[in-house]
Amino acid sequence: MQVLKEGARPMLMAELSRRSGVPVATIKYYLREGLLPPGRATSATRAQYGEAHLRRLRLIRALVEIGEVPVAGIAKILAAVDDESESLHVMLGTVQYQLGPHPSVKPSQTDGDESWQAATREADDLIAAMGWKVTRAAPARTLLIAALATIRRTSAAPPAPGLRAYAEAVASLTDKEVASVDRQDADRQDVDRVAVAESAVVGMVLYERVLVALRRLAQEDASARHFG
Amino acid sequence: MQVLKEGARPMLMAELSRRSGVPVATIKYYLREGLLPPGRATSATRAQYGEAHLRRLRLIRALVEIGEVPVAGIAKILAAVDDESESLHVMLGTVQYQLGPHPSVKPSQTDGDESWQAATREADDLIAAMGWKVTRAAPARTLLIAALATIRRTSAAPPAPGLRAYAEAVASLTDKEVASVDRQDADRQDVDRVAVAESAVVGMVLYERVLVALRRLAQEDASARHFG
Repeated sequence: MQVLKEGARPMLMAELSRRSGVPVATIKYYLREGLLPPGRATSATRAQYGEAHLRRLRLIRALVEIGEVPVAGIAKILAAVDDESESLHVMLGTVQYQLGPHPSVKPSQTDGDESWQAATREADDLIAAMGWKVTRAAPARTLLIAALATIRRTSAAPPAPGLRAYAEAVASLTDKEVASVDRQDADRQDVDRVAVAESAVVGMVLYERVLVALRRLAQEDASARHFG
Repeated sequence: MQVLKEGARPMLMAELSRRSGVPVATIKYYLREGLLPPGRATSATRAQYGEAHLRRLRLIRALVEIGEVPVAGIAKILAAVDDESESLHVMLGTVQYQLGPHPSVKPSQTDGDESWQAATREADDLIAAMGWKVTRAAPARTLLIAALATIRRTSAAPPAPGLRAYAEAVASLTDKEVASVDRQDADRQDVDRVAVAESAVVGMVLYERVLVALRRLAQEDASARHFG
């Protein structure tokens, strides 16, 4: 990362803290952990920081506060952001795989478990039918299998729309989300990987919450119309 | 609730535990808390239980294990299930409002907070535009406002599809889900409120997880196609 951009006004730690909203003690912790590169030392006790520090702090803050990513996960994400030989796809995958919720599945829950095996086939058939290119190690694949296996273990009736309708609904939304990043980047020579990573955290976590909240409101409305 | 149906074979506590998958000690706790009505006493230490106990235990188990609802919330849901003078809409609303996540918003986060006020207008405008009939006290409305306010506080660009596209995607799915409950119930004289409540828990919680997992898989695929 370029520590001080030409022409950008450098700032001291206090200003970096004020503008980023991150307390000085926390910034010092990030410096010690290597999440933030050192500033340009101007004396034994003072250093100057630049806009790149500010933007990186905003990304770290989004990962901590919105993504609830632990420091080890943040280090992996920042390494992928910094390594410009890696594609944006690898960088975005690193962001997504470090975000929670992480599947916590014990082998005892899956080995020889008929519901788990049937749910795995159901998930993989759907992924194939949608033509989705995703890895078998994707945490979201395991989360999907876990939810489908739990559904199989309940006595509740399957829902009317069928799994495919859920997949198509999210595919349509997601394609528009990712395409917008693509278009923004096509306009610039140097892709702003820090900004793309920050948008990805917001898109993945906060719009997920938006989607879940909207679904519950839509349920309340549908219930009012059908049973009210 | 009808404790023993005519013609149904009564069972002892051990069989009720085995068939429901709920340990005897837990069943006794539910009996003490009044979540489960007493069986028909056949001696000072023995009682017989019926199919209604079994189905009610399955609903309680779904609320505990899938919905992570505390006992006080379960008591409210069961009261709404038992009160047949309440509409299915009130019963389903009680289920949804007791399910997490619950918004934890302090007045200090909202009073005089411009992001919060703008997010509230944005949410209510969307609800009005969709023609949704939901209460202002709906936890999902507060969760939506909280997510929108956090998005406003970040510097990330808004997503391409716009909020309305998210609302329409879930509305289409949800209408089919609720309509299927409606059709099932139109076929029967006595609506099985316990079964409707159990299906609602599964639909609200587990299909929410399905939707979130599918969205992340769709993101990975879209990222592979655009940036891979």
